[in-house]
Amino acid sequence: MQFQLTTDFLNTIERLIDNKDGKALHELLQDYHFADIAEIIEELNSDEATFLIQSLESDLTGEALMELDDDVREKILSRLSPKEIAEELEELDTDDAADIIAELDDHIQKEVIDEIKDEEHAADIQELLAYDEDTAGALMAKELVQVKETWTVAGCVREMRRQAENVTRVHSIYVTDKEGKLTGRLSLKDLLTAGEKTKISDVFIPKVDYVTVHTDNDEVARIMQKYDLDAIPVVDETGVLVGRITIDDIVDYIKEEADKDYQMAAGISQDVEADDSIWQLTRARLPWLVLGLFGGLGSVYIMQGFEDALSTFPILFFFTPLIAAMAGNVGVQSSAIIVQGLANDNVKGSLFNRLLKEVGLALINGTALGLLVILFGFLVGQDQLVSITIAVSMLSVIIVAALVGTFVPIILDKRGIDPAIATGPFITTSNDIFGIFLFFYIAKLILGF
Amino acid sequence: MQFQLTTDFLNTIERLIDNKDGKALHELLQDYHFADIAEIIEELNSDEATFLIQSLESDLTGEALMELDDDVREKILSRLSPKEIAEELEELDTDDAADIIAELDDHIQKEVIDEIKDEEHAADIQELLAYDEDTAGALMAKELVQVKETWTVAGCVREMRRQAENVTRVHSIYVTDKEGKLTGRLSLKDLLTAGEKTKISDVFIPKVDYVTVHTDNDEVARIMQKYDLDAIPVVDETGVLVGRITIDDIVDYIKEEADKDYQMAAGISQDVEADDSIWQLTRARLPWLVLGLFGGLGSVYIMQGFEDALSTFPILFFFTPLIAAMAGNVGVQSSAIIVQGLANDNVKGSLFNRLLKEVGLALINGTALGLLVILFGFLVGQDQLVSITIAVSMLSVIIVAALVGTFVPIILDKRGIDPAIATGPFITTSNDIFGIFLFFYIAKLILGF
Repeated sequence: MQFQLTTDFLNTIERLIDNKDGKALHELLQDYHFADIAEIIEELNSDEATFLIQSLESDLTGEALMELDDDVREKILSRLSPKEIAEELEELDTDDAADIIAELDDHIQKEVIDEIKDEEHAADIQELLAYDEDTAGALMAKELVQVKETWTVAGCVREMRRQAENVTRVHSIYVTDKEGKLTGRLSLKDLLTAGEKTKISDVFIPKVDYVTVHTDNDEVARIMQKYDLDAIPVVDETGVLVGRITIDDIVDYIKEEADKDYQMAAGISQDVEADDSIWQLTRARLPWLVLGLFGGLGSVYIMQGFEDALSTFPILFFFTPLIAAMAGNVGVQSSAIIVQGLANDNVKGSLFNRLLKEVGLALINGTALGLLVILFGFLVGQDQLVSITIAVSMLSVIIVAALVGTFVPIILDKRGIDPAIATGPFITTSNDIFGIFLFFYIAKLILGF
Repeated sequence: MQFQLTTDFLNTIERLIDNKDGKALHELLQDYHFADIAEIIEELNSDEATFLIQSLESDLTGEALMELDDDVREKILSRLSPKEIAEELEELDTDDAADIIAELDDHIQKEVIDEIKDEEHAADIQELLAYDEDTAGALMAKELVQVKETWTVAGCVREMRRQAENVTRVHSIYVTDKEGKLTGRLSLKDLLTAGEKTKISDVFIPKVDYVTVHTDNDEVARIMQKYDLDAIPVVDETGVLVGRITIDDIVDYIKEEADKDYQMAAGISQDVEADDSIWQLTRARLPWLVLGLFGGLGSVYIMQGFEDALSTFPILFFFTPLIAAMAGNVGVQSSAIIVQGLANDNVKGSLFNRLLKEVGLALINGTALGLLVILFGFLVGQDQLVSITIAVSMLSVIIVAALVGTFVPIILDKRGIDPAIATGPFITTSNDIFGIFLFFYIAKLILGF
């Protein structure tokens, strides 16, 4: 039953576009889901995509535009007139329409809004554009079903019929007082079971989770996940109900944040995908590699400082990649678990206890790995003092790497900086340099070269 | 308005537990949300938590149990009798109840199911337990609102009132034919606007997304995200409606999968959190460090093979951490972007094009980094041939690392193995060894030591 985009089907569509046969396109595609139309558009070039969008009804293509990759959408919008863009936006919920407008240049934004025929819709979009990005105000939609405490069930059903026209999906029915302040919610169950003449004030649930327009997106996501909410109402500073956020927007947000943290940990800045251009991928990847290169050159410089050991203990130099790898791996492990803990809000307890735990963990892991190094040395007939030196230095490096990996993200987070930047190449590189210095320094103390 | 667990409040609760004052606990906590109760339980020891659960109503604690960490829940359940567990499960939706039962030992499972008074509920749970983990059958709940095509709107509302008793949230109303086969869905809007005597068959939407009990969880998550669904119906092999999956379960699933991939990339196996015990953290982290250690020892062995260069080109050995870091970073970047692309289903096009792209990307990045190395050599007055040698070797290492990072996950994925295992330490370690060998081998070709 699932839609599968075949090459044949795509060829048919491209042929119709080549022939400028908008009518046939319309007939072929009008009954498809907007998400499938979006999938088709992603496979077309920008001119073809623009023709396709112009050929289909806006109620279908508006939603499809919303599903596209930012860069694909940008190219298509640049080919549409402000009037055409406005037509697409008329069909979208206010939150999606505002998201799309926000991507346009300032002067085009104004033209597009002027072209929107439904004045209430236009005003709602402008209100949403005024809120700070990353807050509930910018994430919410104005469409919702709202009833007054003083109404009867029958009046409520009548009013809901009217409001539901503009609301794609009724997630919840919110109850407000005379001033429009949020006072509770109404369950569908209660609405169905209550008598027609019952007052809403007698059946509604006076307890409702909500956020304000200034609540941070992270907090909205946390609350909706914690309380398993499908939708959450948004109020302004005075408690007046002004919008609602639905779970599908939060799903997208959670996914994007997780993808961003994952890429950051892998040393990829900016939001890129496997299918982006070489140039975009280079811009996202090269800076981190340059950072790693400087780290590596730092290590070269440090080792030159310990050059004396080359003649007496060349084996130490063979162990540097191992030391760097250990410092890097331990640092990444520690930072990843802390960054994830901070994101999921489950890093609790005092810093001192955390310090004790990380040192304990590093001691256990470091001792186990140190014993393996000594065993290896024994098997290949290496000087025992050298083996012990390497094991002890490595243990110190592991402890320091674990501490750096744990505390750098915590400190960044306390200062309001995204701790995710302290994962991946950043931690690996600093731990590489630091680890190699520490390794040779301790080796020098023990072996005395 | 948000719940904040204070130390004072926690002390009060612990004092009441110490005094075995179940009644006061009940009064204090009965009006809290189950997610808040879960937060409190996470802070208590297992005996305290067990007493708390025994003191409160099952409709609250059942849901709270569901929200707990697996290991906390396991300890509490081991302290409850099968009868007590059954009471908690009576209050849960079938999907949640089945998840909890699945965690119990086989012989306790049977005892608990026997203790469930509602026979239909018990039978539903047993049905869910029979499905494969990671399929829609195991993820779905039996609770849903179902109406027949042949009913009138009035009859439908009557029937919905009855069914809604058992359904926490009405996501969608599903329409079935006489045999119970899914034929469509009914929007609340249409139900509200249609006349009382209208037949459902005249107003229902005959198009509905669905999955079968055997559909993979990944696919369910993909479909629900793609089509922005709040809930999706599940049918059996014959098309009969047997359950529905709601978006909150999918949110949890997406979050868990993202966390798992992130930890895998950071070299942490098993699902651990910052607050887990040292022993759990060691088990999750040490194996990957041992892998890295073996890789490092492999590098030692390789460098011993190029020992001759020690006297003539010792500088090469100073560059090994840099080479290892570059090979590691490039490998992690390439693998991360592919693993993410595979997870999000946007890796398209032929393998050959991907190969061309990765080589192109590696050439651009490698050349830029190589020029920096030559510049560095010039600045510190290094022999130019040595600088060029290092730059060229590094370029080759980067190309190979990018290819390994790209194709290992793709190959694993084609063979049905989770490509995420090929990120992080696995890729870093293999690229370390391979990179260092390649570096010295090419250097030997050019410099001829």
